[in-house]
Amino acid sequence: MTQESNVPSANESPAQISLPEIFNSHLGGKLSIHVDRPLTTKRDLSIAYTPGVAQVSRAIAQDINAAEDYTWSSRLVAVISDGSAVLGLGNIGAKASLPVMEGKSALFKKFAELDSIPIVLDTSDVDEMFEAIVRIAPSFGAVNLEDISAPRCFELEERLIEALDMPVMHDDQHGTAVVVLAALKNAVKVVGKNIEDLRVVITGAGAAGVAVTEILLASGITDIIVTDSRGTIHEGREALTGKKLEFASRTNPRGVAGGTTEALQDADVFIGVSSAKIPDEQVATMAEGAIVFALSNPDPEILPEVAARYADVVATGRSDFPNQINNVLAFPGIFRGALDAGAKKITQEMKLAAADAIASLVGEDLASNYIIPSALDPRVAPAVAEAVKSVAK
Amino acid sequence: MTQESNVPSANESPAQISLPEIFNSHLGGKLSIHVDRPLTTKRDLSIAYTPGVAQVSRAIAQDINAAEDYTWSSRLVAVISDGSAVLGLGNIGAKASLPVMEGKSALFKKFAELDSIPIVLDTSDVDEMFEAIVRIAPSFGAVNLEDISAPRCFELEERLIEALDMPVMHDDQHGTAVVVLAALKNAVKVVGKNIEDLRVVITGAGAAGVAVTEILLASGITDIIVTDSRGTIHEGREALTGKKLEFASRTNPRGVAGGTTEALQDADVFIGVSSAKIPDEQVATMAEGAIVFALSNPDPEILPEVAARYADVVATGRSDFPNQINNVLAFPGIFRGALDAGAKKITQEMKLAAADAIASLVGEDLASNYIIPSALDPRVAPAVAEAVKSVAK
Repeated sequence: MTQESNVPSANESPAQISLPEIFNSHLGGKLSIHVDRPLTTKRDLSIAYTPGVAQVSRAIAQDINAAEDYTWSSRLVAVISDGSAVLGLGNIGAKASLPVMEGKSALFKKFAELDSIPIVLDTSDVDEMFEAIVRIAPSFGAVNLEDISAPRCFELEERLIEALDMPVMHDDQHGTAVVVLAALKNAVKVVGKNIEDLRVVITGAGAAGVAVTEILLASGITDIIVTDSRGTIHEGREALTGKKLEFASRTNPRGVAGGTTEALQDADVFIGVSSAKIPDEQVATMAEGAIVFALSNPDPEILPEVAARYADVVATGRSDFPNQINNVLAFPGIFRGALDAGAKKITQEMKLAAADAIASLVGEDLASNYIIPSALDPRVAPAVAEAVKSVAK
Repeated sequence: MTQESNVPSANESPAQISLPEIFNSHLGGKLSIHVDRPLTTKRDLSIAYTPGVAQVSRAIAQDINAAEDYTWSSRLVAVISDGSAVLGLGNIGAKASLPVMEGKSALFKKFAELDSIPIVLDTSDVDEMFEAIVRIAPSFGAVNLEDISAPRCFELEERLIEALDMPVMHDDQHGTAVVVLAALKNAVKVVGKNIEDLRVVITGAGAAGVAVTEILLASGITDIIVTDSRGTIHEGREALTGKKLEFASRTNPRGVAGGTTEALQDADVFIGVSSAKIPDEQVATMAEGAIVFALSNPDPEILPEVAARYADVVATGRSDFPNQINNVLAFPGIFRGALDAGAKKITQEMKLAAADAIASLVGEDLASNYIIPSALDPRVAPAVAEAVKSVAK
């Protein structure tokens, strides 16, 4: 297949990587600082540092916009986490999340040529996180929030978008949502349905579940049922707060009560973004031409070979199955496009454009086992950046 | 001269660098992030990012000390400023200070192979600065405070040293102090005096003045007079607070009142670390074999060619005169040594060892116009690091 040209052979499975190899590969960390100017002669020093640098600082003091041209901050993303919702590990704290944030910085560089610095926070209090980020904000040009647990992530992101004059995005929400939408756009083509007519079930009302719901609503899908550990979210349910309370009126127009058993009956799409397992027999009740995105990592809500008995298109979050929904397809290009455009916000329109760009790259190779480009496809980030930039104001 | 072997010819004077050349050299900033691991194949991605990185994060969650081996934080210095006392520019704010902080990061890399990230703070409130730094502290392994105005810099440094389990140093204080002491140790050899017997006058009780005073006291010098804009600091003076109140009893044992006229009479050493000019006729009253360190930049307290009429040894902060007192001789090696040793504090003993190491490198080439190595001498940082490490606990 075309998309395989950029990826290694299947015998390089992650399962075959030994622990010593993993630990050796992280020894000393994964990043370093590179100095882009010569510092060999007195003259070099006089230009890059004193006395020359004073001229540059003076120019920025007179016109703060000059910082865009004469510092690295305008092309620098802060990858910020409190380590409260890291991969499948949960709340492991700031220091333990650092290898993940370094990895994220590595991906920014690899896919979008964007510099970024990991900042991990020794607090999980939203007020304290907000204050710290706002105070260090002149150091960089954009904020990628990462692995921060719900519901704190919603409030923190919202307050930062309001307070900071720069792109801010919680990737676990919106990166995931963009790639899900991209995959769904292609999946409906495979099964020959209209996206607006879909009945969608989303299990999980955490960071990813909420953002996926929002982007699907923004794409014109109306029949969405969101479930959490207590069942479907609907207007008759009591004790709902925050996003869930909002979703009670904005989703589930048929008012389906109960759990996934009730919700999946005749559903066109199942999107799993919690770790709760889904039994075969529930998937079996979905509509003809069903689409299953079982995105829990490393253990999908239902194994793809099982889901494939009942669904026409199956995707997971794993690299060792076809159709990997991986947000590395979205975030490097989104931030790159927003920064290149000098955008002050990452808008819903930019996210929708990013999803379109990702979906389009599949082109004529579209098939039930190729609805989304490979995570390593080098065309993706530039295409996403271009799409985001083109709709940026 | 030996020390000139590492520096360019004299015709490369900073004065001859045009503004366009300076601005072009800062275009896009001076730093970038380098990824030290391959990210080309799915296998690479599975090691550096998910799922492999989860193993590393889990190991750190179980034993936080593992972060020293498996993240870049243990070799990463945060260069932190609020932009309140930048070079000769004063309080220019966070964003305008960023080119200087990038330059500082460049020097860390160039001289000590240390990675560092500039963090500029959108607040000059000590409590808010303290909180922000403590909250982001798990992101790095040491803190270099930079260009923060007195007296806030004293309180901030003190509180951070107390709160953080890592090396913290305000370079404008201690970097300067270490290099002044190194230069003074060699200068007294040139003039044939004992360091303990010196009468020293320090003009300026800001960040540098206070730290120079402290390190000279720690070196056994007792007859030190510190002056500020209102004259000498002595026990009879009223309305003193903070460090100045402390110095009223710890310095000026002869109780000299008045100003620099009175203080410089028969003094052996003049150290200028304020921008106040010193008239020739005052320098003329100094003792035989006088030593003048006129460190204000870019305009020394007295021009070196004028000072040389009355003093046997003259030093400035400028690269276009002999004997440049430049703290790039100190900070890269001090942080490198402290981090290599796994030290939790930068102690006075480490600073004294650094000064000794810098002074020693001059060796047999010692002369009135060569009391301190060149700022570009590549031997300095490794020697300082070694000396600091050897006394670290």
